[in-house]
Amino acid sequence: MSARTLHLNLFVYPGGHHEAAWRYHGTDPKRLLDIGFYQDLARRAEAAAFDAVFFADGPSLADNVRHASRFRLEPFTWLSALAAATERIGLIATASTTYTEPYNLARLFSSLDHLSGGRAGWNIVTTGASQAAGNFGLDEHPVHADRYDRAREFVEVVTKLWDSWEDEALVVDQKSGVFADTDRIHEINHTGRRLRVRGPLNLPRSPQGRPVYVQAGSSEDGRSFAAAHAEAVFTAHQTLRGGQEFYADLKARARALGRDPDRLLVLPGISPFIGSTEAEARALHEEFDDLTQPEYSLQLLRRLLGLELSAAELDGPVPRQLVETRGERGNGSRFRLVLDIIDREQPTVRQLLHRLAGARGHRVVTGTPEQVADQIQEWFEHGAADGFNVMPPWLTGGFDLFADQVVPVLRQRGLFRTGYGGATLREHYGLPRPAAAPVR
Amino acid sequence: MSARTLHLNLFVYPGGHHEAAWRYHGTDPKRLLDIGFYQDLARRAEAAAFDAVFFADGPSLADNVRHASRFRLEPFTWLSALAAATERIGLIATASTTYTEPYNLARLFSSLDHLSGGRAGWNIVTTGASQAAGNFGLDEHPVHADRYDRAREFVEVVTKLWDSWEDEALVVDQKSGVFADTDRIHEINHTGRRLRVRGPLNLPRSPQGRPVYVQAGSSEDGRSFAAAHAEAVFTAHQTLRGGQEFYADLKARARALGRDPDRLLVLPGISPFIGSTEAEARALHEEFDDLTQPEYSLQLLRRLLGLELSAAELDGPVPRQLVETRGERGNGSRFRLVLDIIDREQPTVRQLLHRLAGARGHRVVTGTPEQVADQIQEWFEHGAADGFNVMPPWLTGGFDLFADQVVPVLRQRGLFRTGYGGATLREHYGLPRPAAAPVR
Repeated sequence: MSARTLHLNLFVYPGGHHEAAWRYHGTDPKRLLDIGFYQDLARRAEAAAFDAVFFADGPSLADNVRHASRFRLEPFTWLSALAAATERIGLIATASTTYTEPYNLARLFSSLDHLSGGRAGWNIVTTGASQAAGNFGLDEHPVHADRYDRAREFVEVVTKLWDSWEDEALVVDQKSGVFADTDRIHEINHTGRRLRVRGPLNLPRSPQGRPVYVQAGSSEDGRSFAAAHAEAVFTAHQTLRGGQEFYADLKARARALGRDPDRLLVLPGISPFIGSTEAEARALHEEFDDLTQPEYSLQLLRRLLGLELSAAELDGPVPRQLVETRGERGNGSRFRLVLDIIDREQPTVRQLLHRLAGARGHRVVTGTPEQVADQIQEWFEHGAADGFNVMPPWLTGGFDLFADQVVPVLRQRGLFRTGYGGATLREHYGLPRPAAAPVR
Repeated sequence: MSARTLHLNLFVYPGGHHEAAWRYHGTDPKRLLDIGFYQDLARRAEAAAFDAVFFADGPSLADNVRHASRFRLEPFTWLSALAAATERIGLIATASTTYTEPYNLARLFSSLDHLSGGRAGWNIVTTGASQAAGNFGLDEHPVHADRYDRAREFVEVVTKLWDSWEDEALVVDQKSGVFADTDRIHEINHTGRRLRVRGPLNLPRSPQGRPVYVQAGSSEDGRSFAAAHAEAVFTAHQTLRGGQEFYADLKARARALGRDPDRLLVLPGISPFIGSTEAEARALHEEFDDLTQPEYSLQLLRRLLGLELSAAELDGPVPRQLVETRGERGNGSRFRLVLDIIDREQPTVRQLLHRLAGARGHRVVTGTPEQVADQIQEWFEHGAADGFNVMPPWLTGGFDLFADQVVPVLRQRGLFRTGYGGATLREHYGLPRPAAAPVR
C-alpha cells in the first residue's frame, strides 16, 4: 500500500451547513432546488478529486423549515442526476432501514451503482426523527434498540440480494440464445425475525458488487453496528481527544470481530470558515452568527436533544439543572457532545446556539487555509481521522474556498491526492470489491 | 385549442420490445446496462420532439431471464440520469401502489419533477406479477380487487402529499428570515381503510404540482380506475375495432364522472417493423421471428396468461379446449386479447408465439414508413387513439427508423409537431397544471 492519504467527502446540505446559510449574501437561495446548482457543485468536488459527495436524508419534514432551508432533497434521484454530470466522484445516499422495504432499497442502490459505473455508497441509518412514524402508518417511532435490530437483519437481506446474481451470471451469448445463466442467479429465501424476502434481485450484480457501506451513528448500538458492517463512518467530534477515543474504540471493535481496521474509515465532520487572515475568518464566522435566528436553534435543540431552553435568558448561562435532567434521551451521542461543550466552554445560551448553528454539533474550524489544514493534519496524524466529511457553511462559496485554498496546502504536504487513481468509490476509499457470498 | 395532433412516447425496454431483440445483429447487448446508451436514446427521442420516454417496472425478476434481457432497470434512478441528459422530453416511471410506501413514492416523484423541471409522469400500476409478493414478506400476492382498492386510496394519499405545500409556501426572504410560510404547509392526516399518513411532504410543491397520472390496465377495474384518475392511458389493442371500443368506453366513463375527456389521452402500444418496401419490412420481421426461442414464449404465456402450451405440437393448431378452460384468469384484458387472436387468425402454436414475440400482445405493424404512418393516422382519426406508445422491436435502430422515416411523414400530414411548444410533460400533453387542493 502507498503512503496513507486523506479521504475527503463533500457533505451537501441545501444552502450549506450553517443554519443561516440561505440568508448569507453569498448564497443564491433561488437555486436551492435547481439540480444544475448541485451538478455544478459535484463537478467542482470532482475537479478537487474528492472521494464522494454525500446527502443526508430523512422521510419527514423538519419542524423548523420556517426559518431555514430544511426540506429534503431525495438522494437517489438527486444523486442519479449528479452521476450523469460527473465521471469519478463517489455518490453516497442516506437511506433508512426503518422506513424502506429492503427489496426496493436494494434495487435503488444497485441501479445507482450501475448507472454511475460503481460509485454508490449507502449511509445506513435507522432514522432518528420520530415524526417519520406518522408518515408510515405507525403510532410510535420504533425505539432505538428495535431500529438497530431491524437494521442488522436489513443489511443481511440486502447484502444477499446484491449477491443474488453471481458476477458470471450475465452470459449474453447471441448465438446460443442464453442471456443469463439462471444456475448462477439465486433466490435468497431469507426468513428472519423481522423480514422475509425471497429474491433474487431483478438486476445483474453491480460494478462494485455492493455499494460502500457507510454508517453515521456513534451511540453504543451505532458503534457496534459500524464495527460489524461499516466500511466508512461519519461521526461528530468537537475535540481531538474525543475523536481519538472514538477512532481507537471503533478500530479495536473491528479488529475484535476479525476485520482489517484499515477497511473501516473514520471520517469526522468538519465545517470550515476560511479567511486570508485569522481575523478575516473570525469576522466571516461572526457574520453568519449574526444571521442566526434563536427560535430556529431552540427548536433544533428541542427536537434533536430534548433540551428546552426557550424560557432561558439568551445572554445568561445555560441552566445546568435543566440539562442534567434530560441526560438519558434517545440515541445519546449527540446529546453527550452538547453537554461536553457546556462543561468545557461554559457558554451563555446564545453562545451555545451559535456553537451549534454551524453544523449541528459537528466541529467548526475558523482560520486561514494553513490553520484549517493544520487542524486536518493533526487529527489525521494523531489517530482521530482517516479523512473528513467537509461541511461547508454555505454553498458553493464555502466549498470553493476549501477546494481552492485548503486542498492545495494539503497536497503540498503530501496528505491528499492530486487526481483519482481508480474509477469506483471502493477504489477511492482503498476498499476491495467484495465477492458474492456463496449461496447457503 | 389548436388542431389536434398526435402524442408519441418512446416505451423503452432493455434491448427492445421484441423478445429476441438482444440477439439481433443490430443490437449491442453489451450496452444493455450502460446509462449512456439510454441517454443517447432519450436525446434522439427529444430531437424527434417525442412527448416522453416511458419505463415499465415490476419489483421481481421475470422467470424467463435465461432467454431474454428481462431484468428491470429501476425507473427513478434511470430517469433521473436521463433527465440530466435532456431538456424537454417527459419522463414516465412505472411504480407500484402495492409494493411501495406512499410517502417514499411521493418523494421520488416530487424530486424527479423538480430535477427535470416538470417532466415527470407516473404510470400507476398495482403489479401483476405474483412472484413480487415473496420479495415483500407476503405469502400471497393480493388479489386484483384488493390491489385496486389500495391503489385508489394510495392515489388519494400521494395527491394530498403533493398538494401539502401550497405553491406560495416557499417564501425565501433573506431579510426577514422567513424561509417557508408554515401556515401554507399542511399535515394531511390521512386515515383510511388501508393507509395512515400524516405528512406534510418534505419537499416544496414541484413544477407540475403533481406528476402526470398515467395508467395501463384495461380490465374492468383498470378502466374504472383510469376514468377516475388517469390523464393518459397506455393500452394494448390488435384491431381498430378493439381500439375504438376501448377509446369510446374510456372517454364515456370519464365524461360520466364529470371529467373533460380531452384530458384523458388514450395511447395504444405500437411496435413497428419498417422497411423501404413492404417485402423488406416483412423480411426484417421474419428475421426477428427466426431468432425467437419457443421455450421463452411458452414461459411468457404460462406466466402472463396461465396458458400451458408446452405439450402442444409447435406446428399444430392451438388446442381450443385448453384455452377455454383457462379463460377466467386474473386481470383478463391481455388474456382476452390473446383469445381474440386465436379466434381471428387460427394460428399454429408457433405462429401464435411469433405473434406475441413482438411486443407481448401489443400491436405489431410491418410496412413502409408510409404504411406505418397510415396505420397511425387511421387509428388517430377514427376514434381509437390520441397518440401512441411506440415500442421499437430493437434499440436503437428500431427507433431510429421510426424517427427518421415515419415521423417526417406524420409531420408532412400535419399530424405531429415539429418541436416542443412547452417545457413540461403536462404542456406536451395539453394538460393543465393542477392547483393544490385546499386542505379539508
